[in-house]
Amino acid sequence: MAGNTFGTLFKLTSFGESHGKGIGGIIEGVTPGLELDVDFIQNELNRRRPGQSKITTPRDEKDQVEFLSGVFDGKATGTPLAFIVWNKDQKSGDYDNLKEIYRPSHADYTYDVKYGIRDHRGGGRASARETIARVVAGAIAKLMLRQTGLDIKAFVSQVGEIGLSKEPDDLTMIEATPVRCPDPETAQKMIEYIDKIRQEKDSVGGVVSCVIKNVPIGLGDPVFDKLHAKLGQAMLSINAVKGFEYGMGFKASSMKGSQHNDEFFVKDGQIKAKTNRSGGIQGGISNGEDIYFNVAFKPVATILKEQRTVDKQGNETIMKARGRHDPCVVPRAVPIVEAMAAMVIADAWLLNKTYRNS
Amino acid sequence: MAGNTFGTLFKLTSFGESHGKGIGGIIEGVTPGLELDVDFIQNELNRRRPGQSKITTPRDEKDQVEFLSGVFDGKATGTPLAFIVWNKDQKSGDYDNLKEIYRPSHADYTYDVKYGIRDHRGGGRASARETIARVVAGAIAKLMLRQTGLDIKAFVSQVGEIGLSKEPDDLTMIEATPVRCPDPETAQKMIEYIDKIRQEKDSVGGVVSCVIKNVPIGLGDPVFDKLHAKLGQAMLSINAVKGFEYGMGFKASSMKGSQHNDEFFVKDGQIKAKTNRSGGIQGGISNGEDIYFNVAFKPVATILKEQRTVDKQGNETIMKARGRHDPCVVPRAVPIVEAMAAMVIADAWLLNKTYRNS
Amino acid sequence: MAGNTFGTLFKLTSFGESHGKGIGGIIEGVTPGLELDVDFIQNELNRRRPGQSKITTPRDEKDQVEFLSGVFDGKATGTPLAFIVWNKDQKSGDYDNLKEIYRPSHADYTYDVKYGIRDHRGGGRASARETIARVVAGAIAKLMLRQTGLDIKAFVSQVGEIGLSKEPDDLTMIEATPVRCPDPETAQKMIEYIDKIRQEKDSVGGVVSCVIKNVPIGLGDPVFDKLHAKLGQAMLSINAVKGFEYGMGFKASSMKGSQHNDEFFVKDGQIKAKTNRSGGIQGGISNGEDIYFNVAFKPVATILKEQRTVDKQGNETIMKARGRHDPCVVPRAVPIVEAMAAMVIADAWLLNKTYRNS
Amino acid sequence: MAGNTFGTLFKLTSFGESHGKGIGGIIEGVTPGLELDVDFIQNELNRRRPGQSKITTPRDEKDQVEFLSGVFDGKATGTPLAFIVWNKDQKSGDYDNLKEIYRPSHADYTYDVKYGIRDHRGGGRASARETIARVVAGAIAKLMLRQTGLDIKAFVSQVGEIGLSKEPDDLTMIEATPVRCPDPETAQKMIEYIDKIRQEKDSVGGVVSCVIKNVPIGLGDPVFDKLHAKLGQAMLSINAVKGFEYGMGFKASSMKGSQHNDEFFVKDGQIKAKTNRSGGIQGGISNGEDIYFNVAFKPVATILKEQRTVDKQGNETIMKARGRHDPCVVPRAVPIVEAMAAMVIADAWLLNKTYRNS
Repeated sequence: MAGNTFGTLFKLTSFGESHGKGIGGIIEGVTPGLELDVDFIQNELNRRRPGQSKITTPRDEKDQVEFLSGVFDGKATGTPLAFIVWNKDQKSGDYDNLKEIYRPSHADYTYDVKYGIRDHRGGGRASARETIARVVAGAIAKLMLRQTGLDIKAFVSQVGEIGLSKEPDDLTMIEATPVRCPDPETAQKMIEYIDKIRQEKDSVGGVVSCVIKNVPIGLGDPVFDKLHAKLGQAMLSINAVKGFEYGMGFKASSMKGSQHNDEFFVKDGQIKAKTNRSGGIQGGISNGEDIYFNVAFKPVATILKEQRTVDKQGNETIMKARGRHDPCVVPRAVPIVEAMAAMVIADAWLLNKTYRNS
Repeated sequence: MAGNTFGTLFKLTSFGESHGKGIGGIIEGVTPGLELDVDFIQNELNRRRPGQSKITTPRDEKDQVEFLSGVFDGKATGTPLAFIVWNKDQKSGDYDNLKEIYRPSHADYTYDVKYGIRDHRGGGRASARETIARVVAGAIAKLMLRQTGLDIKAFVSQVGEIGLSKEPDDLTMIEATPVRCPDPETAQKMIEYIDKIRQEKDSVGGVVSCVIKNVPIGLGDPVFDKLHAKLGQAMLSINAVKGFEYGMGFKASSMKGSQHNDEFFVKDGQIKAKTNRSGGIQGGISNGEDIYFNVAFKPVATILKEQRTVDKQGNETIMKARGRHDPCVVPRAVPIVEAMAAMVIADAWLLNKTYRNS
Repeated sequence: MAGNTFGTLFKLTSFGESHGKGIGGIIEGVTPGLELDVDFIQNELNRRRPGQSKITTPRDEKDQVEFLSGVFDGKATGTPLAFIVWNKDQKSGDYDNLKEIYRPSHADYTYDVKYGIRDHRGGGRASARETIARVVAGAIAKLMLRQTGLDIKAFVSQVGEIGLSKEPDDLTMIEATPVRCPDPETAQKMIEYIDKIRQEKDSVGGVVSCVIKNVPIGLGDPVFDKLHAKLGQAMLSINAVKGFEYGMGFKASSMKGSQHNDEFFVKDGQIKAKTNRSGGIQGGISNGEDIYFNVAFKPVATILKEQRTVDKQGNETIMKARGRHDPCVVPRAVPIVEAMAAMVIADAWLLNKTYRNS
Repeated sequence: MAGNTFGTLFKLTSFGESHGKGIGGIIEGVTPGLELDVDFIQNELNRRRPGQSKITTPRDEKDQVEFLSGVFDGKATGTPLAFIVWNKDQKSGDYDNLKEIYRPSHADYTYDVKYGIRDHRGGGRASARETIARVVAGAIAKLMLRQTGLDIKAFVSQVGEIGLSKEPDDLTMIEATPVRCPDPETAQKMIEYIDKIRQEKDSVGGVVSCVIKNVPIGLGDPVFDKLHAKLGQAMLSINAVKGFEYGMGFKASSMKGSQHNDEFFVKDGQIKAKTNRSGGIQGGISNGEDIYFNVAFKPVATILKEQRTVDKQGNETIMKARGRHDPCVVPRAVPIVEAMAAMVIADAWLLNKTYRNS
């Protein structure tokens, strides 16, 4: 299986299955001498963890990261930073009934056809538990980028049909509710809706939005590695993501050039854009304005309702998932979106250093 | 400048600027012995060419591809297939007034900050003329994939606020109108609208949709190189693209799992999905159903209206583009979207061969 | 730090330091369904291990490999195969006196200048213990290649000035002596010589030769990835290697074309070469004849004699290594050379599948 | 065919066959703003060109480089620098008799087995004419590295059995004779010997040595991308190369640690090594001392004598090459060795910038 590495200079190569020994990875490109703020890294993992509130699954996995290399006296040496989060509390038994069954809208069938073998326990490599490795690498990327002043904030802007009616005023409110929507009123509606969905034994999708402030000008590389193209790949590689748009996104397709263009002006001797419909990127390169984008998540495929499906032998059957499952994973996806964004930016930031003339 | 290569096994490395000697590239991974159907390749280029109709720019560039290597007796030898489309008919003079000016929502400013130097004539490397290289590589990819029976069809599904009201019935009608919308009635409305926009000296955005039929099962690689993630990067790397969604896309975010899941059944001994809301990909791997996706284009930034901007010296000024410019590039983007899709699929198809046990 | 990955399709990304938690890696490109013959893998590790005999260091590290992912029911699933060999028995204290000292002909100084920080315990990332990861990956590569009938055999052909006087007759005798020289008489001389060097508190270099039989025709890729160029990089990346030659090697430089060329003839309807001065590779591609090459190792830099050096503060000083050190690492390098060869071949073998027309 | 790209950040992707339209490539990673000293680049090509003197082939190919992109007003813009050297004066007819024949020790047979198709004219992609692309890219790399003061000098140290008896005193004498050996007396012997070989209708091998002075400390990346491992791959990828050694090379294998180690001392407050047996690299990273290495070339396979071989149909036959062929290519390999060294160093130099903390 190819495709386990993300990034060119700041690179994560990840490994692990949901019910194997653990999830981990190797991070390359870490700045030598970087202080490894372990509390910060662990906190990012905790944000991803299930069991944070009544609206997420009650599995209290207490994902603790163990670094295996690349650290000495609390600092990154620059050598590969390997890590693992050991799997605990997995109930493989919950999945015994799925051994022979292809769950609808899961990767069971495609893995079996492609590889001819599959660790069927809990999704195996296709499990969303794989995103643990992303969150660890993203936390390291955030630590590396601290010196630039860059700030990445993702939040839930939509759950089912409940969405924010306008840009949020106050991003400090994101973590104030378990649903991670910065508008308290909308957050409350979302929480109630998710609870209703849980009672229906169903699941629901949503949208995570992200704003990146204080971006250095000049990040990103035309032609194929435009900054937003790498952000797009990064987000679309997260489980359950079905769409990505930045700046005006799909709305731009119904606009006129005279409405969409961001005119320049001069402020305090600095060239600035009056508007930021472009979303902080021109020609694939950051222009110093805020980068913002939306990521669409489908409802998770695992629902506790009965569904019709087939087994490996090609017999039609009825299945019903067991175990503990989030009715809406979007709030837990917030730190994952941030992590992927941080990785993309850190990679572009390292690459950008190579253009310096001295 | 990094980022000029797309693909891992089927690879395009592109070069060229809009007003330099030409646009070209090197294609690697071509199947040795492949018949190079030059007419087909040239026809793909013609589809991209400006000056095809009154709704596109009247520059008749007659882009002719010249192969520089990798061909012998009309067949690809498998060695690097280098090619160039020589630039002709460029009127660099049209751009002299832009030498010192940063055009709004163009890459002028970000290139200058990032690289400290820029070929300002007509967009240089950031020009959409760069997509010529993609169309040539995409045509080769299509030739390679012919043996699989795979069929890629893109079309215009929206121009400004005019969109298809339902899935098109007949994809053979795509090329029937210059706007490349398969519904004749909608196409006519689009044409009239684009004409109006031209008279307003403005531009307008749109959406290109794409359907891929007869996809072999098993293409694509989890985790980071999911087939849709590579498609997303591919599409987002095209000039003016602001968004990508596949399957239900952003609509999936307001759906429930019980509405979105594709249940399996058995038909003629084959496992099939009853519905295809997933868009032909599960867990990043093609499942044999149709792949479909949408690509959102912003209105092109170059408009013939006056706009306020600044020059390199930081003085505010007024600019007005000269020359010939498409008010809506979306119809010409159709072959580009197809080309990028073909490249992604060909790459995944080659990689998939490495999993065979013998 | 870049450079921790070897291979394109069959890939090892390694991590670890000699006195950190362990040495490990992630292997990608493993054939799904491959039986993981754990005894075989462990045996390869045992061949590399110190403490195998009186001529190697008495550290009995009992390096046991633990697989962290990619295995299910004893088979590789094709997903990333992560592993670790936990460090035990390290006496970091042995290195306390080296904290401030740059050991002659070690990587201490260059790491400090390059990265500004270094795990000084026992060589850190620059330790030969890093080769553990290579041996594990090489063992997996050998398992994958079993179906081809390919056979890789490395042996010691020279220790100091004691060398084989002719091609060895019987490669089954390699493991018969701890020095891994297949000629018993020469082996005995080498053993005595190494013992003498140990008593002198010195070290000595040597040459490892390798023969690969039953190589499929067609492996390797011109231009830059010629099979022997990748073998060369692979071997030169092993600690203490100073030279690589294949076929006639440096001797070819004093030969005439009429002496060196391998004429073709036909045997049983098969095209064969009468001689094999080329070493089994033409134009960077294997031709089915035996591949053979030599790898030159310098004497290990760590000796128990006094040496003059400088410390980090730039003061001249006298140092003397402590602890247990091999006077000649060349016998232990034999499985490492085989492992790297297996990785190069497995990578080329996977890549070669992509050229198939169907 | 894979393997046409060399380098990670400073990258050459090459194309072309000996009797196709030309040889060229795309260079990425060029410093934006670099003055393109066209005379220097052309002069490097002239050094590689056949027909420079009576000891090389009389084909006067006048290889002129044409840049296709990436240049504006005489400066590199940093965008991909594409170039071509058009083929002229090829006499394909000289090769008609070889169409059905596998020349001994050529790549004819392996290409045919691997790819099933081959441009048989003059070696096609396997021709040494491919090295033109390397020389152009190497010239650009040298221009980029000028600011570092780095100096790369290769020379012929051996032709057949005639070699330098000691390190050359004066590297300015390299270009003084057509054989590019800096010792005039040895050079004269080599010239006479090559002339004799020509009369015998035979060919002869040789050794190119290279010294790199003023190398910045810190270039190169452990573990797999050690500076000497990349140099090794680079050199071994040149046509006809059979071996590579650096520092003491194969001689190191018969030395003791106490003889080989380079002790440190302090000079003018700088840490220096008393000796440089290591060849300027420790742990894969440059240490500021001179890098030196040797590259062994076999005699070219094409000789004007009769040889026995087989044809594609498997019939034994007698062949005799026609046309103009160098009896000894080693003098012309000098600029190619320098070019590859420059590319390796430039790549490591760019990568090294990413470790800076600011």
